[in-house]
Amino acid sequence: MEFTIDQVALLINGKVEGEGNIKVNRLDKIQEGKPGGISFFSNEKYENYVYETDCSAIIVSENFTPNKAIKPTLIRVKNAYVGFTQLLEAYSQITKMQLTGTTQPCYMDESSTIGEGFYRGAFSSIGKNSKIGNNVKIHSQVYIGDNVTIGDNCIFHPGVKICNDSQVGNNCEFHPGVVIGSDGFGFAPMEDGTFKAIPQIGNVIIEDNVSVGANSTIDRATMGSTIIKKGAKIDNMVQIAHNVIIGENTVIAAQAGISGSTEIGKNCMIGGKAGIVGHLKIADHTNIGANTGISKSIEKSGQTILGYMGFDFKSFLKSYAVFKNLPQLQDKLKELEKKL
Amino acid sequence: MEFTIDQVALLINGKVEGEGNIKVNRLDKIQEGKPGGISFFSNEKYENYVYETDCSAIIVSENFTPNKAIKPTLIRVKNAYVGFTQLLEAYSQITKMQLTGTTQPCYMDESSTIGEGFYRGAFSSIGKNSKIGNNVKIHSQVYIGDNVTIGDNCIFHPGVKICNDSQVGNNCEFHPGVVIGSDGFGFAPMEDGTFKAIPQIGNVIIEDNVSVGANSTIDRATMGSTIIKKGAKIDNMVQIAHNVIIGENTVIAAQAGISGSTEIGKNCMIGGKAGIVGHLKIADHTNIGANTGISKSIEKSGQTILGYMGFDFKSFLKSYAVFKNLPQLQDKLKELEKKL
Amino acid sequence: MEFTIDQVALLINGKVEGEGNIKVNRLDKIQEGKPGGISFFSNEKYENYVYETDCSAIIVSENFTPNKAIKPTLIRVKNAYVGFTQLLEAYSQITKMQLTGTTQPCYMDESSTIGEGFYRGAFSSIGKNSKIGNNVKIHSQVYIGDNVTIGDNCIFHPGVKICNDSQVGNNCEFHPGVVIGSDGFGFAPMEDGTFKAIPQIGNVIIEDNVSVGANSTIDRATMGSTIIKKGAKIDNMVQIAHNVIIGENTVIAAQAGISGSTEIGKNCMIGGKAGIVGHLKIADHTNIGANTGISKSIEKSGQTILGYMGFDFKSFLKSYAVFKNLPQLQDKLKELEKKL
Repeated sequence: MEFTIDQVALLINGKVEGEGNIKVNRLDKIQEGKPGGISFFSNEKYENYVYETDCSAIIVSENFTPNKAIKPTLIRVKNAYVGFTQLLEAYSQITKMQLTGTTQPCYMDESSTIGEGFYRGAFSSIGKNSKIGNNVKIHSQVYIGDNVTIGDNCIFHPGVKICNDSQVGNNCEFHPGVVIGSDGFGFAPMEDGTFKAIPQIGNVIIEDNVSVGANSTIDRATMGSTIIKKGAKIDNMVQIAHNVIIGENTVIAAQAGISGSTEIGKNCMIGGKAGIVGHLKIADHTNIGANTGISKSIEKSGQTILGYMGFDFKSFLKSYAVFKNLPQLQDKLKELEKKL
Repeated sequence: MEFTIDQVALLINGKVEGEGNIKVNRLDKIQEGKPGGISFFSNEKYENYVYETDCSAIIVSENFTPNKAIKPTLIRVKNAYVGFTQLLEAYSQITKMQLTGTTQPCYMDESSTIGEGFYRGAFSSIGKNSKIGNNVKIHSQVYIGDNVTIGDNCIFHPGVKICNDSQVGNNCEFHPGVVIGSDGFGFAPMEDGTFKAIPQIGNVIIEDNVSVGANSTIDRATMGSTIIKKGAKIDNMVQIAHNVIIGENTVIAAQAGISGSTEIGKNCMIGGKAGIVGHLKIADHTNIGANTGISKSIEKSGQTILGYMGFDFKSFLKSYAVFKNLPQLQDKLKELEKKL
Repeated sequence: MEFTIDQVALLINGKVEGEGNIKVNRLDKIQEGKPGGISFFSNEKYENYVYETDCSAIIVSENFTPNKAIKPTLIRVKNAYVGFTQLLEAYSQITKMQLTGTTQPCYMDESSTIGEGFYRGAFSSIGKNSKIGNNVKIHSQVYIGDNVTIGDNCIFHPGVKICNDSQVGNNCEFHPGVVIGSDGFGFAPMEDGTFKAIPQIGNVIIEDNVSVGANSTIDRATMGSTIIKKGAKIDNMVQIAHNVIIGENTVIAAQAGISGSTEIGKNCMIGGKAGIVGHLKIADHTNIGANTGISKSIEKSGQTILGYMGFDFKSFLKSYAVFKNLPQLQDKLKELEKKL
C-alpha cells in the first residue's frame, strides 16, 4: 500500500519539512533505510544515521535541531517514538482490517450468519448454526465448525480451525494453524490393557481481546468449558488441555503446556517451554520461568518460580550454581573423610 | 441435536419419572444445570444440587430416594454413572458418526475409492490410487495423498494431512492439524559443511484403534515403516520421528517427542514434554514422567522413570530434594573444613 | 511408478545379470524384500539375505562374488551403496518434482505470477502481487499470501502457510503444516495490567536450500527480517521467534525453540527440545544437546553444551553423576558432622 508523505503526516498529526509529495510504502529501521521507506529518530545514539540514511522520510520530535544537512523529508511530531507507534498501529489496522468481501470459492452453510464488514478467504469453510459478528476477517482455508459463536472484530489467519461449539468474544486474533476445540485427551483404562475414549462433550470459551499464536492448540472440556479469559496472550505452539482456565491478561510464551483442569490466575507470565501438570491452581501474578516444570499448586501470588521442578528462582539459581561444582564438592568431602 | 427426555430414557434403558415430553439438547454438570440440559447424580457429595439444579432431567440410580422435592424429570437406571456414560457415548457416536454425504467443493481423484457411509467435507482432497473403507469421515480441508489405504470407521478432523503411501487401520481418529507421513529428518553432511537430504522413501503404518491429537506429527520412515501399533493413544503436538515403533496401547501425552528409530514397548505411559533420543528400546509397561529425558534404553519392564536425564523416580525425587538444599549442604561442608 | 530392471540399471550406470525385463516399483530393505522391490547389498553382515530375499533385483558391487545361487536379478555397479543412493535420489527427484499442472479448484490472484514447470494442488491459494519462480510445487491446501517472492525448485507440501511479505530463495522445501511469517509475539504492558499488541511489520527471509519440518513456525520480524540463512535444516515443530537469525548450514532438531532477536551462528547443531532465550548470540559450530536450556550468549565457537541451564557437556555429565548420588553424599556429610 502506498501513501504520500503528506498523507502520513496527516495520519499522525505531524508537520512536513521538505518534499511531501513523495510516495512511501514501507517502514524501515533508520540504519537500514532505503528510498520508499519511513523511519523515525528518537534515541540520540542513532543521530548519525539521520544524516546518512537513504529513506524517504523520518519522523522526528518537534524540538530536534539537526546539526548537518538531512536528505529525507522530515515529519515533526510532539514525540517521535509515540508518532511512529501511532503510524505502526494505523498501518497494522489498515493492513489487517481493510480486507472485505469474499474470495471464491468459499463455503458457509445457509444456517449460519455473519455480520457486516466481513472478509471470507478462498477455501474457508463455515459449518451449521454458527453466528459471526461484525468486521470479522476469515482468511483462506480457515475452518469454523457448527454452533460456533464469534463476536466482532476478530481475525482468523489462514488455516485456523475453530471446532464445533466454540465461543469466541470480541477483538480476538488467531494466528495460522491454531486449533480451538479439539477433543481433550481422556481415555479410560480397560481391564485388558486397552483404552476407551471418554467422550469430550464440553467446549472452549475465549473471551475478548485474546491472541493465540501459530499452531497452538486449545482442547475442549470433557464437560463444561475450557476458558481463556479476557486479554490473555498466547504465543506459538502452546498446548492448553481440557478444562483448563487461563486468567485475565495472563501471557504464555511459546511451546508451554498446561495439563488438564489446571487453573491459572490473572496477570501471570509463563515462560517458553514451561510445563504445568493437571488439576493445579496457580495464584495471580505468578511468574514462571522458561522451561520450568510445575507439579504443585502455587498459592501465594507474586512469586517467581524456576527449575526442572520449579521453586523460588533465587533459591534455584543458588542450588544450580552449586550443582555446577558438585564434582569438586564431592572431592572435598572425600578428602575430609580421609583426614578423619 | 434435540431429543425428548423419553427418547433419551429409551436410549439408556431408563424409566421416566415426571414430564417426558420436554426437549433436551445438552449434557450439563449438575452444579451448572440449565433448562434444556441433562445431568446425572451419582456422588452423594452433590446431592444438594439435585434439589437446586435448573436442568431439565437428571439420570439417577434406581435406588435413589430423594428427601426433598425435585424440579427436573428423573430418568432412573440401574447405575446412574454407567447410564450417563452410555448416554455420553451414544451422543458422541451420533455427533461424530452420523455425518454422511459430500459438502462441495471437495476433490477426489477418480483412481481412488471410498466405501459406504462416508462424509467428505468442503475443500477436502484425496489423491491418486487411495483406498478408503466404510464409514470414514473426512472433514473440511483434510488432505489424503496418493497410494494411501484407510480401514473402516476412521475420523479425520479438519485440516488433517495424511501423506502419500500411509496405511491406516480401522477405528482411528485424527484430530485437527495432524500430519502423518511427512519426510523424516535425515541429512548427510557434505565435506563443505552443507547437508544433502537423504530421500525418505518409507511410509507410516497406523494400526487399529489409534488416536492422534491435534497438530501432532508422525514422520515416514527413511526405508521401511514408522509404526503405531493398535490401541496407542497420542495427545496433541507429539513428535514421532522416522522409523519409530510405538507399542500397543501405549499412551503419549502432549508435546512429547520420540527421536528416530526408537522402539517403545506396549502399555507404556509417556508423560507430557518427555523426550526420548534415537535408536533406543523402551521395555513394555515403562512409565516415563512428564518432562523426562531418556538417553539410554530401558530393558527391565515396569519401571517408573523421572528426571532431566531420567532414572528411577523415587531416587530422582530424593536427589532433587537434596538439590534444593545444596547451598546449605555446601555451607556445612565449608564449616567442617574450617573445623579440621 | 513402475520401471523395468533394465531401466533402473541405465539410471545408475549398472550392468544387469539375469532377467532385466521384470517390473519394479519399490525400494525394499534386503531383509524385507518382496517381489516388485529393489534392494542393495553392501554390508557383509547381511550377505545371507542375498540368498534368501524375495525381492526382484539387488544392486551389488562389481567385485561381489556370490557363494550360493541367487534368485533376484543383480545390478552390478562400482559401489553398491553409492549406486543405491543415486537410485534413491533419482526416485525422490522423480516423485517430488515430476508433478506439474493444476488440480482444480485452486486460486491465484491475477496480480501474481508463477514460472514454468509448476504444480498447483487442489484448494491451494496464492494472494496478490506474489512472484513465484520455476519448477515450484504448491501442493493441496497451501496458502501463499500477498507480496511473497519465491525462487526456483521449491516444494510446499500440503497445508503450508507462507504469510504476506515473506521471501523464499531457491531449492527450499516446506513440510506439511509449516507456518512462515506469522506475527511475532510482542505486547506492550499497559498501566491497567492489559497488553497492547505491538504491530509486527517486518517479514521472514528464507535463503536457498533451506528445509523446514512439519508444523514448525517462523515468525515475521517486528521490523526488519527474521532470517534463515542458506542451507539451514529445521526439523518438525520448531519455533523460531521474531527477528531471529539462523546461520548457514545450522541444523535444528524437533521441538527446539529460539526466542526473539537471538542470532545463531553457522554450522551449529541444536538438539531436540533445546530452548534458547532471546537477544543472545550463539557462536559458529556450537553444539547444543537435546533438551538444553541456553540463557547466556556463547562466544567461543566449537563448544558442546548440555544441561537444564547448559554448560560444557562433560562438566554437566560429571555434575549429573554426582546429582544421582546426592542423598548418599548428604548422608556422608551428616556422619562426618557427628564424628566431629
